[in-house]
Amino acid sequence: MTSPSHGGDPEFKSQRAHAIFKEVLKRVKPDESEVRRLSRFAHFIMKKVHDAAEELSIDIEDVMLVGSAARGTWVSGEHDVDLFMLFEPPQMRAELELNGIEVGKRVVSKDYSDEEFNCIAYEKEYAEHPYIKAVFGDAAGSRYAVDIVPCFAVQDPSRIESAVDRTPFHNRYILSKIKGLEDEVLLLKQFMRGIGVYGSELRLQGFSGYLTELLIINYGSFLDVLKEASISWKKGMIIDIESHGNYEDNDPLIVIDPVDPMRNVAAALSIDNFARFIDGAARFLDDPSIDFFFPPQVEGICSDEFCSILTERGTRMLFVVFDAPPLVEDILFPQLRRSAEAAVELLQREGFSIHREAIWAEKEHAVILLELEVSELPRIKKHIGPPVWNHKHASKFRSKYQDARFGIYIEDGRYVVDIERRYTYAGDFLDAKLRETSLGKNLKNAPFRIFEDEAILNVLRSNKEFGIFLRRYFAKKC
Amino acid sequence: MTSPSHGGDPEFKSQRAHAIFKEVLKRVKPDESEVRRLSRFAHFIMKKVHDAAEELSIDIEDVMLVGSAARGTWVSGEHDVDLFMLFEPPQMRAELELNGIEVGKRVVSKDYSDEEFNCIAYEKEYAEHPYIKAVFGDAAGSRYAVDIVPCFAVQDPSRIESAVDRTPFHNRYILSKIKGLEDEVLLLKQFMRGIGVYGSELRLQGFSGYLTELLIINYGSFLDVLKEASISWKKGMIIDIESHGNYEDNDPLIVIDPVDPMRNVAAALSIDNFARFIDGAARFLDDPSIDFFFPPQVEGICSDEFCSILTERGTRMLFVVFDAPPLVEDILFPQLRRSAEAAVELLQREGFSIHREAIWAEKEHAVILLELEVSELPRIKKHIGPPVWNHKHASKFRSKYQDARFGIYIEDGRYVVDIERRYTYAGDFLDAKLRETSLGKNLKNAPFRIFEDEAILNVLRSNKEFGIFLRRYFAKKC
Repeated sequence: MTSPSHGGDPEFKSQRAHAIFKEVLKRVKPDESEVRRLSRFAHFIMKKVHDAAEELSIDIEDVMLVGSAARGTWVSGEHDVDLFMLFEPPQMRAELELNGIEVGKRVVSKDYSDEEFNCIAYEKEYAEHPYIKAVFGDAAGSRYAVDIVPCFAVQDPSRIESAVDRTPFHNRYILSKIKGLEDEVLLLKQFMRGIGVYGSELRLQGFSGYLTELLIINYGSFLDVLKEASISWKKGMIIDIESHGNYEDNDPLIVIDPVDPMRNVAAALSIDNFARFIDGAARFLDDPSIDFFFPPQVEGICSDEFCSILTERGTRMLFVVFDAPPLVEDILFPQLRRSAEAAVELLQREGFSIHREAIWAEKEHAVILLELEVSELPRIKKHIGPPVWNHKHASKFRSKYQDARFGIYIEDGRYVVDIERRYTYAGDFLDAKLRETSLGKNLKNAPFRIFEDEAILNVLRSNKEFGIFLRRYFAKKC
Repeated sequence: MTSPSHGGDPEFKSQRAHAIFKEVLKRVKPDESEVRRLSRFAHFIMKKVHDAAEELSIDIEDVMLVGSAARGTWVSGEHDVDLFMLFEPPQMRAELELNGIEVGKRVVSKDYSDEEFNCIAYEKEYAEHPYIKAVFGDAAGSRYAVDIVPCFAVQDPSRIESAVDRTPFHNRYILSKIKGLEDEVLLLKQFMRGIGVYGSELRLQGFSGYLTELLIINYGSFLDVLKEASISWKKGMIIDIESHGNYEDNDPLIVIDPVDPMRNVAAALSIDNFARFIDGAARFLDDPSIDFFFPPQVEGICSDEFCSILTERGTRMLFVVFDAPPLVEDILFPQLRRSAEAAVELLQREGFSIHREAIWAEKEHAVILLELEVSELPRIKKHIGPPVWNHKHASKFRSKYQDARFGIYIEDGRYVVDIERRYTYAGDFLDAKLRETSLGKNLKNAPFRIFEDEAILNVLRSNKEFGIFLRRYFAKKC
């Protein structure tokens, strides 16, 4: 069997792919000593949680190590230790939160100067509920990120009170199935990270760790996930490992949670990241390369290059820059996305037209990029009035515009008048009207400025990440 | 009762209106001597038709004077004499046409040098059927246009074989109702002519003479037609003088033919001319003026003025000029209209945008005017590919565009690539693509050129009518 693609014959491609997997695992799979150290740290911190609870006379049913550290599916260098404290359900959620935070705080605020690990920093964080987030270190200089999260030990996932209560079930499920498949998970995670679709946070809208593990469990290997994705995945496809049955939704990918038939594990995945994964899978299988896992470093775009690209494209660019929005990413990004859509809609309704838009943010700035196909419009614009046979409105319209510079005319039975356009440039128009549109709740009152074309570089010239974002936007090979 | 309008109080307005009507009738109503002359001519020509038929031994049931000359609803100076020869139905349509033409030809080709009227010119014309069209003159220098049309004398309008067979019924119906209302018809016709909506030919798509007569019969007077139009006419309204009942159609105005319940007398009326009449009626009643009947002469636009208007508007203009299309107006105008729509659609699909369009024609040129809001686009344009999960098409798209200057990206789950636009200027694009679009059957192969902005004046600078057309298009007061 021959294939017309440029990647060579299937046999050779398969060999090449397996050589690449080996190389990838060499880089991302922790060695024995790293595994041992993380395991020691996990035991250390679990014991400290038990101790603290006892000292405070707070009853904890169980302390559970969850997440990739528990399942052997973590990537070298990534030392995330998630500890869940399981409390008995009869108490109130508020009480559980209080007790959980108290235990967590005691764990992180003790003096560990005589011990192998010591706490470097901690803070109270809020997801659906408050929990303690801390960083520990050891003598060798390794760092360990710890989340100490309280949850209820419910009997059944259908009886959970909040999403965190579901985590122990996920953990048990994966542990029961993943043995021997850990390397496959590592490959899939690294592949997704490499093509930019790993992470289910709202900034990214990609694949979560739990989702990658389920895909491996379902298909058996990394290569089989790629093959299935590249051949048979369609928008709206359903993966139902435990045969729960019917699930209806408009999500691009539906992976029914094995521990909860009502939940789509892939609900956070955007249509474009779903497509990017299919695209990546097909391209890798066609022409395997380690670049998919470890993409080459990209240089930020420089001012001259930016200008010459714009000349070449013939488009104009507007950048709406919100200064230092004081929001966490999970709140900022959905608002930024919605605001970009609102800006596009606003411009298009006025007759400007958009080639493409994008968003970008870091601590100091949140940016909406708008690449315009039409950035300038004539001085006149059509103002469409009532049908001439709407006698009352027609009469008002006639009086109102009787002195119109170019008179009233009739089109499709309606009065029309050419009125003066207040803003002929898209930038001026956006500057005047953006506030009136549906920006997010928090961005609504955030100060913004608008920059055109290379003027954006006055603000973000020295920001390397922004330069990389621009290069990626133009998808130009370096 | 007071009115907020600027035309003064109703009493005064009504007086003013009636003074205007008097003045209009003074100008358009033929005096006794003109009426006598036309009547003499009509009898002369009817006798000649009878004579010719007898000479040729062709049996004619009746010769009928129809149209405005028969009904006393003709405007001074307009000497149109329509004669219908009614034949007995058992013969074939082809035979009737042959006999009709033979009689007509004999009438117009005789030597009348000893008589009061003589034939100046004639030709065979084709409407639904062939007929003879001639011009006669008298010693005083008056001209008389004659149509000699053969038709069948059917018993009932439901049994007509062609539209001409219906005309005798129209004539009898109007004659039975119009007595005493002739002046009202004259006012309505002249008003419609003044505001540019009189004439049901396809160039104009306005009100026919028969339609104006029916409106007067229905509402009783010119002023009542205006009042009803300005107060209660709506799109889709039905006037059913003989209470025939149901009629369904999307026409803006439905006037059920008193002699044929299946026919809308106003079928040729466009939505915009319907609206223009309502508009004119409302404005006249609000502020009566003789200008509605006899609009002031308009000067053609000059080159400087044209340029300064374009600068003021900020739009660009394209003129598609077909040279000397060898078509009668009833064929040319529908095709020109359709071609204009096709051009607009073509430009808009490409991303150019149209402010307004119009058509114009005379013997030498047929013109599509396109006023552009956006006449230039960037060098790149989006080329949208298949959804990434359409695996076969997706793979083809990837191979085809793998070397695309700006790479392939994903939007809404589809592959997209920015390709180079071949024509960035609307004029160039239209020049290259107009032929591919659905121009009319005859315009399809007609040579055309495209002119931009004032360049059109190189072709049509000396054409007064075109200058007036442009001024009217801009609706600029002179």
